[in-house]
Amino acid sequence: MAELKNDRFLRALLKQPVDVTPVWMMRQAGRYLPEYRATRTKAGSFMDLCKNPELACEVTIQPLERFPLDAAILFSDILTVPDAMGLGLRFAEGEGPIFDRPVRTAADVDKLFVPDPEGELKYVMDAVRTIRRELDGRVPLIGFSGSPWTLATYMVEGGSSKEFAQVKGMLYDRPDLMHKLLEVTAQAVTQYLNAQVDAGAQALMIFDTWGGALTPRDYQEFSLRYMAQIIAGLKREADGRKVPVVLFTKGGGQWLEPMAEAGADALGLDWTVDIGAARARVGAKVALQGNMDPCVLYASPERIRSEVAAILAAYGQGSGHVFNLGHGIHQHVNPEHAAAFVEAVHQLSAPYHQ
Amino acid sequence: MAELKNDRFLRALLKQPVDVTPVWMMRQAGRYLPEYRATRTKAGSFMDLCKNPELACEVTIQPLERFPLDAAILFSDILTVPDAMGLGLRFAEGEGPIFDRPVRTAADVDKLFVPDPEGELKYVMDAVRTIRRELDGRVPLIGFSGSPWTLATYMVEGGSSKEFAQVKGMLYDRPDLMHKLLEVTAQAVTQYLNAQVDAGAQALMIFDTWGGALTPRDYQEFSLRYMAQIIAGLKREADGRKVPVVLFTKGGGQWLEPMAEAGADALGLDWTVDIGAARARVGAKVALQGNMDPCVLYASPERIRSEVAAILAAYGQGSGHVFNLGHGIHQHVNPEHAAAFVEAVHQLSAPYHQ
Repeated sequence: MAELKNDRFLRALLKQPVDVTPVWMMRQAGRYLPEYRATRTKAGSFMDLCKNPELACEVTIQPLERFPLDAAILFSDILTVPDAMGLGLRFAEGEGPIFDRPVRTAADVDKLFVPDPEGELKYVMDAVRTIRRELDGRVPLIGFSGSPWTLATYMVEGGSSKEFAQVKGMLYDRPDLMHKLLEVTAQAVTQYLNAQVDAGAQALMIFDTWGGALTPRDYQEFSLRYMAQIIAGLKREADGRKVPVVLFTKGGGQWLEPMAEAGADALGLDWTVDIGAARARVGAKVALQGNMDPCVLYASPERIRSEVAAILAAYGQGSGHVFNLGHGIHQHVNPEHAAAFVEAVHQLSAPYHQ
Repeated sequence: MAELKNDRFLRALLKQPVDVTPVWMMRQAGRYLPEYRATRTKAGSFMDLCKNPELACEVTIQPLERFPLDAAILFSDILTVPDAMGLGLRFAEGEGPIFDRPVRTAADVDKLFVPDPEGELKYVMDAVRTIRRELDGRVPLIGFSGSPWTLATYMVEGGSSKEFAQVKGMLYDRPDLMHKLLEVTAQAVTQYLNAQVDAGAQALMIFDTWGGALTPRDYQEFSLRYMAQIIAGLKREADGRKVPVVLFTKGGGQWLEPMAEAGADALGLDWTVDIGAARARVGAKVALQGNMDPCVLYASPERIRSEVAAILAAYGQGSGHVFNLGHGIHQHVNPEHAAAFVEAVHQLSAPYHQ
C-alpha cells in the first residue's frame, strides 16, 4: 500500500496536532457535480452504480479532483446490508429506496441472516479495494454503514417514512421482535465494517440518520446500544495505524453525553448544536466532526466564509475537529460554493493550530 | 358567555392545583376520525372546510363527543395569515399546501401587509365565535397561529420543503429581507391572535413547526425573537381570566432555557425530551405541555397506558403539566387507541395531584 501523504483527517479524529483543520463533505460524491451525473448516466440506475466497483471508484475520486478534500468516502448506499439479506432493494424515480419484501412479522425477522461481506456484498469490498488502490495514498478512505436502527426503519417500513408508523408500531408493541431484528443487523454491520477495513478502509463512520426520531430512552435502548455493540466488535488497527470510528446521529444533539460513551473516537454533529458547547460537553472524551448547515452553501462565497469562521471560532484552539457539513450536500448547490467552503476551512483554520 | 365547567387546562397552564392532569391532542379534529372525514367530504376542499364557520365548528367539537378531552382547539390551518396576505393558498391532493405567489424578492416582501382579522380573516373569527357559543362552557377554546419563521418557510418555498433551500438562501444571503418579512408577519400574527381572543379564544398556542431546522444562533434571531415580540403584544386577559400562551418549537428540546424567557406561560415539548429533565431545566419558569410520541398510539391500549404512566411519573408531583402528544395525531390511528390514551391520563394522574 502507498504511504499516506495527507493524514490530517486521521490525526484530527485522534486529537493529534495538525497544521490546518481537515475537511470533507458528507455526500461529496453526488448529484451536485456534473461529472457525477455523467457517470451515473453511464452506469444506469443508482444501484448499478453502487454495484460497479470501477464506476463507484470513479465517482468517489471525482470530488478530490476538484477540491483539496482531506478524506475520501466509499461511494455506496446505506441499504446494501438489508439488500444483501434478501429484502429486494430498488430505487423508484423520485420516491427514494423501496424494499420489495419488508420485514413485518416474526417469520420475516426469522428469515434475516448475516450476509457474507465477500459473498453478497463482495461488490462493496471490491469498490473499497479499487478506490484504495486508485487513491494511492492521497488521503484516507472512509468506510461506512447505516446504524441498525436506521436500517430497521427502511427494512420495516419498506422504504422512506415520515411517521415511522410500522417500525415504531413494532418497537412499541413487539420490542422482543425489534431487538431480534436489531441484533442480527448489528452482527451484519460489524462484519460488513470489518471487511471494509480488511479491504482498505482507514476510518469508519456509522450513520444513524433516524436515531433522532426516538424518545431519549428508546434512543439508548434501540439505537445507541447496538452502535456501541458494533464499535466493540470492530478491528481498530490497519497498516499499523489506528482506524478511528465516527458516530453520527442526526438530531442527536441532546444525547451527546451517552453517545460519547459508546466507544467512538469522534461524534458527528448536525447544525442544531453549537460546536463550542458540544466541545465543552464531550470534548474531553471524543473529537467532533461537523457542523455547517448545508443550506449555507446556497449563500454567497463571502457568507460561506463568515459561517466557516464562526464555526472555527466556536470550536476554538487545538486539534480534535474535522470540518464537515451537518448533513449531506444538497444536489442543487453550485460546485463553486463547495470550493469556497473547502478553501475557507483550510485558510481560516491555521491560527487555531499554532 | 356560559361559565366554564372544566377549567383544568387553564389552571394547569398557570400551575394552579387540579384534580387530574388535563389532556388534549394536537390535531384532535382530524382524519383519524370517520366523522371528520364525512364532514370534510361534505365541505369540499380542506380550505372550504376551514372557511366554513359552521363546519369548522362541527369538526372542532367532534373529538369532544368521543373523548373527555379538557380543551378544544379551533379547527383551522396555520397558513391562513399568508393566504390573507394574497399569496394564493391551495392544497393539492397528496402534495400539501402550495402558494401560487411565493415571496422570493425584495419587491415580493414589500407587497406583504398586515391583514385585517375581521376582513380577509373574518371567517376564522366567525369560526371562533361559533365554536365558543356551541361549546357552551364545556372546556376552554384554544386559538392558535403558526410562528413567523414557520410561516416564512412556506411563504418563501411556496409550499412544504425538506431542505429549505429558498428560505435559508434568503436567511443567509439577505438577512435584512428575511427580517422585514418576519417583522410584518409577526405584526400580522399578533393582530390575528388578539382578534381570536376578542372572538372568544381562552388560551393561545404558537406552533413553530420548523424552528428546529435552524442553528441555535439563527433560532434565536429568526424564530424565537419574533415569537417573544408577538407574546409581548398579546391581550392576556378575557372574561376576567388570564389567557395563557403556549409556545411549541418542534425539535426545540435543546433550547428550552431561552424559550422559557420568551414570555409564554407554557412550553410544548416533542417526544425527544424527557419531560422530567425538561421540568428540572425550566419548570420554575413555565408549565409544560406534552409529550408522548404519537406513534405510541399504533401500539396496544396496554402499551399506551404504560407509556402514559411513564410520562406522568417523569413529570412527577403537582400541577403545571398538560398532557398531549409530542406532535399531531396521525391519520391512521385507531380512534379507540386515542380513547385509551385520554382515559389513561385521567385515571393514572390523580395520585400526582394529592
